[in-house]
Amino acid sequence: SWNGFHNLLEFAKKAIAMGRSDPRKFIFAAKSGLAMALVSLLIFWKEPFDDVSQYSIWAMLTVIVMFEFTVGATFIKGFNRGLGTFFAGIMAYGFVALSKLAGHWEDVIFVISLSLTAFFASYLKLYPTMAPYEYGFRVFVLTYCILVVAGQRTGEYSEAILSRLALIALGGLICFLVNTGIFPIWAGEDLHRLVVKNFKDLATSVQGCVNAYLECLEYTRIPSTIVTYQDAAEDSVYASYRAVVESKTREQTLVNFAVWEPPHGRYRMLNYPWRNYAKVSGALRHCAFMVMALHGCVLSEIQAPPEKREVFSDQLQKVGTEASKVLQKIGEKMEKMEKLGTDTILKQVHTAAEQLQKTIDQNLHHLVNPENWQSRKHSNQLQTSQSLPVNHDPENAIKKSLSEAIVDFNPIRKLMPWPSCLLLEGDPTITEDEAKTYESASALSLATFASLLVELVARLHNVVNSFEELSEKAKFQDALVSSPGA
Amino acid sequence: SWNGFHNLLEFAKKAIAMGRSDPRKFIFAAKSGLAMALVSLLIFWKEPFDDVSQYSIWAMLTVIVMFEFTVGATFIKGFNRGLGTFFAGIMAYGFVALSKLAGHWEDVIFVISLSLTAFFASYLKLYPTMAPYEYGFRVFVLTYCILVVAGQRTGEYSEAILSRLALIALGGLICFLVNTGIFPIWAGEDLHRLVVKNFKDLATSVQGCVNAYLECLEYTRIPSTIVTYQDAAEDSVYASYRAVVESKTREQTLVNFAVWEPPHGRYRMLNYPWRNYAKVSGALRHCAFMVMALHGCVLSEIQAPPEKREVFSDQLQKVGTEASKVLQKIGEKMEKMEKLGTDTILKQVHTAAEQLQKTIDQNLHHLVNPENWQSRKHSNQLQTSQSLPVNHDPENAIKKSLSEAIVDFNPIRKLMPWPSCLLLEGDPTITEDEAKTYESASALSLATFASLLVELVARLHNVVNSFEELSEKAKFQDALVSSPGA
Repeated sequence: SWNGFHNLLEFAKKAIAMGRSDPRKFIFAAKSGLAMALVSLLIFWKEPFDDVSQYSIWAMLTVIVMFEFTVGATFIKGFNRGLGTFFAGIMAYGFVALSKLAGHWEDVIFVISLSLTAFFASYLKLYPTMAPYEYGFRVFVLTYCILVVAGQRTGEYSEAILSRLALIALGGLICFLVNTGIFPIWAGEDLHRLVVKNFKDLATSVQGCVNAYLECLEYTRIPSTIVTYQDAAEDSVYASYRAVVESKTREQTLVNFAVWEPPHGRYRMLNYPWRNYAKVSGALRHCAFMVMALHGCVLSEIQAPPEKREVFSDQLQKVGTEASKVLQKIGEKMEKMEKLGTDTILKQVHTAAEQLQKTIDQNLHHLVNPENWQSRKHSNQLQTSQSLPVNHDPENAIKKSLSEAIVDFNPIRKLMPWPSCLLLEGDPTITEDEAKTYESASALSLATFASLLVELVARLHNVVNSFEELSEKAKFQDALVSSPGA
Repeated sequence: SWNGFHNLLEFAKKAIAMGRSDPRKFIFAAKSGLAMALVSLLIFWKEPFDDVSQYSIWAMLTVIVMFEFTVGATFIKGFNRGLGTFFAGIMAYGFVALSKLAGHWEDVIFVISLSLTAFFASYLKLYPTMAPYEYGFRVFVLTYCILVVAGQRTGEYSEAILSRLALIALGGLICFLVNTGIFPIWAGEDLHRLVVKNFKDLATSVQGCVNAYLECLEYTRIPSTIVTYQDAAEDSVYASYRAVVESKTREQTLVNFAVWEPPHGRYRMLNYPWRNYAKVSGALRHCAFMVMALHGCVLSEIQAPPEKREVFSDQLQKVGTEASKVLQKIGEKMEKMEKLGTDTILKQVHTAAEQLQKTIDQNLHHLVNPENWQSRKHSNQLQTSQSLPVNHDPENAIKKSLSEAIVDFNPIRKLMPWPSCLLLEGDPTITEDEAKTYESASALSLATFASLLVELVARLHNVVNSFEELSEKAKFQDALVSSPGA
């Protein structure tokens, strides 16, 4: 019991901490309490319409069901609720007319009408394009049910239907006024923050990934959470790019809410281009998939030896840092809602990428196995399935001694899982060939890392383009010229 | 008007087609109608408790709000509803005791209690671990409101509270019986189908991606939907792997539902390992990200010339086909709920991957620029920022003529966007160097594609492992031995 009390106290502390870190949550709850208090006053309304007090519950229920965190979400729910209620009202009057005709069979009509309504609403809401109106369908059946049951029980349909519709509308109105009038919480603002956060996350991830590769970070055992793409908070590089990839659903929800919101705060424009935020974030995600592939190289079973990485270290580092800077900078520009300005933001990262490519070009001997390279002269035609005869001519030996930087030993740091099944079959002839194959694979893996990094740089172009499109459409302010002399 | 009628007719046709292709949707709607009909009969219940008729609306509302597509979802909603209602009942009795003490201030207590309830429920449901109970919180406020208002209006709290609680319970019971008793629709079955579909989608995508690469499919203009990671149905390779990546949220939802479901159909086991389905699918997603990276090579600005691809065509094709076969086969095994059997499913794809690696090894001269390779002898130290002096010694010229397969001209099919900004600056000295850089980059892009394909093969290992774990835990049947003589 003491333990339970302790846990409760812990929970209370954490709950209060939540409100401190994001006061909007506290504000939301307070507004929700206020709306409830306002609507609950209806019960004391005695004159001139006693109905208001009697059916005040419907206004309360509307508030409970419609009160959402952001303005946009409240709008959508309100719209759904309005549509559902409107059609339910029409249907209810239709039912009244029908049941009057039916006379004696009124009760049967009552049951059938409810049943059919539930059937059609349930069926239609499964139709793909109807999914956003799921809530509307539910409200429709709910309201229809309330109206018809009220009418059936009292026999005074018109009065029952009208009084309830009026109270639902009143509840909706209170909900709307409280939610938009007092400290409104905007989905658009949330979307803006989310996209900015994605930029910063990916910048961190790119830098971290390149660092991990150059520090030859060894995953002695790759966490199974990563290989099965589960949540793994302890790996910050993984967690950062995963956050970018996973934010897709939330982003889409926020866009859907934001487009319903009127101009507000820093987004003073009709038809604010919220969908372009999703587009920028999508282009960023396209980059995030490249970071994933880069991280794949870090995780890979086939690894280039540290000595080889050392050769390209400066260039790889430079490209990583510059790419990270670009993302960081666009993120800051977005945060401040500034245009990119006239100087090409990509210039430095492109230069760095070219330098990297050039260095690879000049140091290809680090990437490929020179023995095989020389043997090309003797075995020019394609030898696919046979093993290659190793060439031991003296010229080759000299060449090898000339190139001191070549380190071809022990290029594979870990036992790869996939050849092991072959080795187990006890075919001794395959072993030497295999060893060569993996040496070469390990060297090429460095080329792959570099190649992917260059591709990442190429993809930054899309991010810049979509950001420029957004900054035009959203009329971001012009970049402040930092050096007035320029 | 005629047009509107025509559209309506079209919609009706499509809606009927939806039911034909998935009859469960039709069954769901029919069950929903049946539950509604059953519960609406309560209104005719006059003896011995008139209350049943009077408050039957609460049973109906419960059915409308609780009736979900799958059994698991109904269970969760029922659980949430039960919990919310239970606490609301307790709180309501608490309120009664308090308001009796308050006497004259009863009304004030009423408003304050509702307001505080709304405040705390709204605040706590924002707490991360409370998110799954969001519906429970809403039901709690809703029910508390109904009970207290009913008590307040009639003054007979105990009767009001008990009758409403009983009707809500009755509604929940009817909902539950109809949904699980008649043609139950299982989230587990949906999950199973989704994972099988993911396997088939990814198999298609791998094959398609390798084919596209070998056919040198040119995206004259890459669809902006792809570079901003939007929905693009027309590109089947993209659509397939995107479906695998995007199914994550739906899969998680289905797992959450499925774990609530009792043993049923082919899943006759307590604590059926539904979470392992998510794990298998996660491992598959880990592969899907590699397919994305492969597709990135197809989309890339830097492209290897068709002649070079031709050299590795057979091996790349073989690996693609074998990897695709493995995915296809595991998908089929999963569909039939069979174990993999004793023969190693990965054997052939591993052999193919090794052949590919060996071919690359033996044909490295296709991948690298021989001029630079030779020049290594003369410029052994690292030359990072200077341009490389091109070596024109006669030995080199002879070598070039010996290797007929080298095609070094026009390796870049498209103008890359990233150097263009540098070229525009009008620095003519950089051009020759640049041309070399891109030649080499274009050749390495082929190595990257091959390397990524090998990494994809390595990742298949995780898929097989997690599938084996699932098939053990879920007690899949042993594989049928196809050849009895073996």
